Amino acid sequence: MAVPVIDLNADLGESFGRWTLGDDAALIEVISSANIACGFHAGDPSTLRRSCELAAGAGVAIGAQVAYRDLAGFGRRFIDVAPDELRDDVLYQLGALDGFARAAGSRVTYLKPHGALYHAAVGNAGQAKAIVDAVRTYDPTLAVLGQPGSLLLKEAAAVGLRAVPEAFADRQYTADGGLLSRSRPGAVLTDQARIAEQVQRLMAGEGVIADDGSVVPVSAESICVHGDTPGAVEIAKTVRTVIAASGGSVQAFTNLPS
Amino acid sequence: MAVPVIDLNADLGESFGRWTLGDDAALIEVISSANIACGFHAGDPSTLRRSCELAAGAGVAIGAQVAYRDLAGFGRRFIDVAPDELRDDVLYQLGALDGFARAAGSRVTYLKPHGALYHAAVGNAGQAKAIVDAVRTYDPTLAVLGQPGSLLLKEAAAVGLRAVPEAFADRQYTADGGLLSRSRPGAVLTDQARIAEQVQRLMAGEGVIADDGSVVPVSAESICVHGDTPGAVEIAKTVRTVIAASGGSVQAFTNLPS
Amino acid sequence: MAVPVIDLNADLGESFGRWTLGDDAALIEVISSANIACGFHAGDPSTLRRSCELAAGAGVAIGAQVAYRDLAGFGRRFIDVAPDELRDDVLYQLGALDGFARAAGSRVTYLKPHGALYHAAVGNAGQAKAIVDAVRTYDPTLAVLGQPGSLLLKEAAAVGLRAVPEAFADRQYTADGGLLSRSRPGAVLTDQARIAEQVQRLMAGEGVIADDGSVVPVSAESICVHGDTPGAVEIAKTVRTVIAASGGSVQAFTNLPS
Amino acid sequence: MAVPVIDLNADLGESFGRWTLGDDAALIEVISSANIACGFHAGDPSTLRRSCELAAGAGVAIGAQVAYRDLAGFGRRFIDVAPDELRDDVLYQLGALDGFARAAGSRVTYLKPHGALYHAAVGNAGQAKAIVDAVRTYDPTLAVLGQPGSLLLKEAAAVGLRAVPEAFADRQYTADGGLLSRSRPGAVLTDQARIAEQVQRLMAGEGVIADDGSVVPVSAESICVHGDTPGAVEIAKTVRTVIAASGGSVQAFTNLPS
Repeated sequence: MAVPVIDLNADLGESFGRWTLGDDAALIEVISSANIACGFHAGDPSTLRRSCELAAGAGVAIGAQVAYRDLAGFGRRFIDVAPDELRDDVLYQLGALDGFARAAGSRVTYLKPHGALYHAAVGNAGQAKAIVDAVRTYDPTLAVLGQPGSLLLKEAAAVGLRAVPEAFADRQYTADGGLLSRSRPGAVLTDQARIAEQVQRLMAGEGVIADDGSVVPVSAESICVHGDTPGAVEIAKTVRTVIAASGGSVQAFTNLPS
Repeated sequence: MAVPVIDLNADLGESFGRWTLGDDAALIEVISSANIACGFHAGDPSTLRRSCELAAGAGVAIGAQVAYRDLAGFGRRFIDVAPDELRDDVLYQLGALDGFARAAGSRVTYLKPHGALYHAAVGNAGQAKAIVDAVRTYDPTLAVLGQPGSLLLKEAAAVGLRAVPEAFADRQYTADGGLLSRSRPGAVLTDQARIAEQVQRLMAGEGVIADDGSVVPVSAESICVHGDTPGAVEIAKTVRTVIAASGGSVQAFTNLPS
Repeated sequence: MAVPVIDLNADLGESFGRWTLGDDAALIEVISSANIACGFHAGDPSTLRRSCELAAGAGVAIGAQVAYRDLAGFGRRFIDVAPDELRDDVLYQLGALDGFARAAGSRVTYLKPHGALYHAAVGNAGQAKAIVDAVRTYDPTLAVLGQPGSLLLKEAAAVGLRAVPEAFADRQYTADGGLLSRSRPGAVLTDQARIAEQVQRLMAGEGVIADDGSVVPVSAESICVHGDTPGAVEIAKTVRTVIAASGGSVQAFTNLPS
Repeated sequence: MAVPVIDLNADLGESFGRWTLGDDAALIEVISSANIACGFHAGDPSTLRRSCELAAGAGVAIGAQVAYRDLAGFGRRFIDVAPDELRDDVLYQLGALDGFARAAGSRVTYLKPHGALYHAAVGNAGQAKAIVDAVRTYDPTLAVLGQPGSLLLKEAAAVGLRAVPEAFADRQYTADGGLLSRSRPGAVLTDQARIAEQVQRLMAGEGVIADDGSVVPVSAESICVHGDTPGAVEIAKTVRTVIAASGGSVQAFTNLPS
C-alpha cells in the first residue's frame, strides 16, 4: 500500500580506511533514513563516527546496516554462519554503531541487513531469526527494514518488532514480487522515465510492472535508493522529485506511527 | 594508599573463534572486576557475549579492555595510530561490548587499555587523551583503570572521569615505581610467598619492595591478577586469600565511592 | 585398495599469534605429510615458518592446507566465494606457504583444502574446479589430497594432476562410503580397538564397516589423523603402530609413484 | 649520480575488494617498475593477479610492495613489530605475490617497503635488517628499492643484495637530502614546471634544490611517481616526457647492470 508519506533509505558510510565509496555528503540531502555500515563489510570506526554525525546533522534516521564479517567480499557472499554466532555478530555491530549514534546526539532506530545477509534473511529461517533475536535483545523498540514477504520481516513481526517493507525504485520486479537477478539484463533500471514511473506507481498504490508486463502489488513504507554507483545520486534526486510531484512527502518511517 | 576494601581485576574473554585462552570460569570466581576483550586484540562476538554473561552472573563488574586493532599481535605491539582514529577505535569497542553487557543485564562501568595501548597510555599524551576522550564521549560516568601516575589517569582526572590506579601482585617494581621490564629476569614473580608479601604490603599501605631493595609507595584501588598463564588462577586465589587474611575484602571499585 | 606402504597426514600449524592449537612437535614424529595452514583460517607467518622448518627437519612432506578467508570461523563455515576469486585466494595461500617451505629447504608438494572448503570441494563443481585451477596454475606437479569420489579429485585427475584419496582412522563411515555427520552420535571413533580394527581393514584392503554393519570399500593412499583434540596424538600413534603391525610402512605419498 | 637511463617506479594494485584506488591501467603505460601491494595494506588476491598480469603484459618489472599488516590504516602507521615476526610477514608477502607473478609469466624481481614500513626502514635497524633478511632468505637475486642513505639500502648492500636508491619527482627535498614532511606546506610539488625542473636536474646529475635554496646531491637509479592522487598520472607522464627530452630513456633497473 502506498502512502502519501514515504521514507527514502540508502546505504551510507561504506568507505574503509584509505578507500572511499559513495557520495555520502550528496546522498544525505536526499534521504530520510541512512543504513550505516557497521565495520563488518565496510566502515572503519572513524567512518562510523562521521556517518552518524552526518546523519544526525541532517536529521536523517540512523539504521544499522549489519553484515557478514567479510571485508574482502564487501559482505556480498553468503556465509553459512551458525545462528548463535550470527546473532552475536549482529549484536556486536548494533552496539558499536549505536555508540557513535549516541555520541552524535542521535540513536540507532532500525536495522537493515546488507548484501548477502539481506538475501539470506529472505528465506533462511535460522539466519533471519538470528538477526531478529539480536535486535530484540539489544532494543525491542528498533524497527527492522527488509524485503516484503521475507522471513526477516515475518520473524520480526512475530516477536513484536516493527517490520518495515521496502521497495526499489531502480530494480526490475518479477511477476512473483521478487527482483530480477542482477545477472540478467535489465535488472537495474537506468532510464529516468522508467524509474519515475515505478515511483509514481508505488506512491499511487498501483503496484509495479513486472518483467512479464503483469502488475505486481508492492507494499512499502520505504523506498531504497542506491548511492555507490555513477549517477546514483541523480536517480535518488529524481525519486525525491517524483514523490513531491505525486503529492507525497519524504519522512523517516521511524518518525511515523507503525 | 592501601584500603581495607580492594578490587581484584583480571583480563577475561581473550579467546577468539576456535582458539581459547585463559580459564575464565575459574577466574571469575576470584575477581571483582573483569577486563573483557572487545574484539580488536581478542574476543569474537560470541566470546564477548559469554564473558558478559559470566561476569554478570557472578556479580563481577564489566570493564572494556580496549586495544589496538591487532589480532595477529594480540595488541602487544605499539601502533602509531593518530589520536582521532584511536578515539574512534576505542569508542567502537566500548559500544560493542556495552551492547553485550546490557544484554546480560549489566553495563560496562569502566575501561582499561590492553597491552601496548596500556603502556602507550602511560606516557603518550596524544593516545592517552584519545582514550579519555572516547570514554567521556561515550559515558562520563565510566571509570578509567590504569597505571598509577600515568598520563591516562591524569587526563581522565583532569576532565572529571574517575581515575583508578592499580597495582600488580606478581610483578617486580623498580625504585621509581615502575615495573621491571618483562625482558629482565625476575620481572614476573612466581614465588607464592613473595607474592603474598607484596599483597600484604599493598593492603597495609606499606609500599612494595623494589628490585634495589628500596621501599616504593604504591597507591592502588585495584590489584591486577593474570589469568592466561599456567598457575595464574592459583596465584589469583593466593592474592584473594592474603587479602582476607589481612582483614580486607574484595569488591569492585565501581561499587565503592571514588 | 590398501597398500603395504601408506601415508599419514595431519593438520599442522593451526596456531595464530598468541593462540596455540595442537601439539605439532609430537604430531610431526608420527606423520609423513603435514597439511600446513596458510594464514586464511589459521597460521600467522611465523607459524608458517616454524611449521615448515618442523616438517622439513623431520623429513615430512609439506602440503598447503588452503581455506576460506575466515579467521573468526576457523574456515569451518561455507562461503559462497565466486570461483575466480577462490582460485586467486588459493593461489595466494600456495605461494605464501611455498616461500616458507623453500626457505626451510623443502617445497610444497601437495594441497589439501581445509574445513568447509574441503566439504564444498566434494560436490560444488565451481569451487572444486577453482582449487584445481589454482594448483595447475601454480605448479602442475603438485598433488591434490581429498575425499575419495569428490569432485575435487575428479577435476584434479581430469587435468592431469595427481589426485590422492584419503581415509579416516577415527571417523565412522556410512554405507555409501561417506562419513557419518559429526552431529550424530558415534561419528568420531574414540575406542582404540575400534580404530585399530578400521586401520587394519584399510591396510588389508578389506574396506571398512559402515554404521549399518555393511562393508564399504575404501580406497586410500593416505590416512588422515587429527591432532587438535585431547588424545589425538595417542590415536595417531596407535594408527602408526597398527600399520607397522600390519606389515605396512608409513611414507609420504609424494615419495611414491602415483 | 644521474644516468641517461633511469627507472620509473609507482605503486600498483592498491585496491581491495569492492574498493578501487589508482588508475592502474593508465599508470602501467608510463612506468618501468610496478610496486605491487601484497595484501597486508592493500591488495586482495584477485587484485594481485590482475596487477601481475597487467605488469607482465606491459613488460613492466614486478616489485613486492610489502607493508605492515594494517588494512584499516593502509600501512601508514608505524607498528612496533618484532624483527623476527616482521621478517616472516615480509617473506609471506613475497611468496604470495611471486606466485601470481609466475602465474603471469613473470617474477618478482625486487622489493620496496610501503608507507610507514618504508619510513621505518630508513633508521630502524631491527626492522631494516628484518626486511633484508626476508629478501635474502627468499631469493638473494632480488633487488631492494628504497631511500638513498637508508639503513635498508645499507643492510641490503652489506649482505650482497642489490640496493637501488630512488628519488622523488614531486616531493620537496630538505638540505640534508631528506624529504620535507608532508605536514609542511610545499611538501608535495604540484607545479608541473617545478617538477620538470627537478627531474631535469636529477637526469643531469645536478642534484635537487632544497627548501632552503641549497643544492643537494641526490643519487638515484629510479624515480618514484605517484598514481593514487588526482592528476598523478599526468605528473607521471610529465616526468617521462622530461626524461625523454633530457636525452634519457626509461627502463626497469632490474634490466640494467647494477
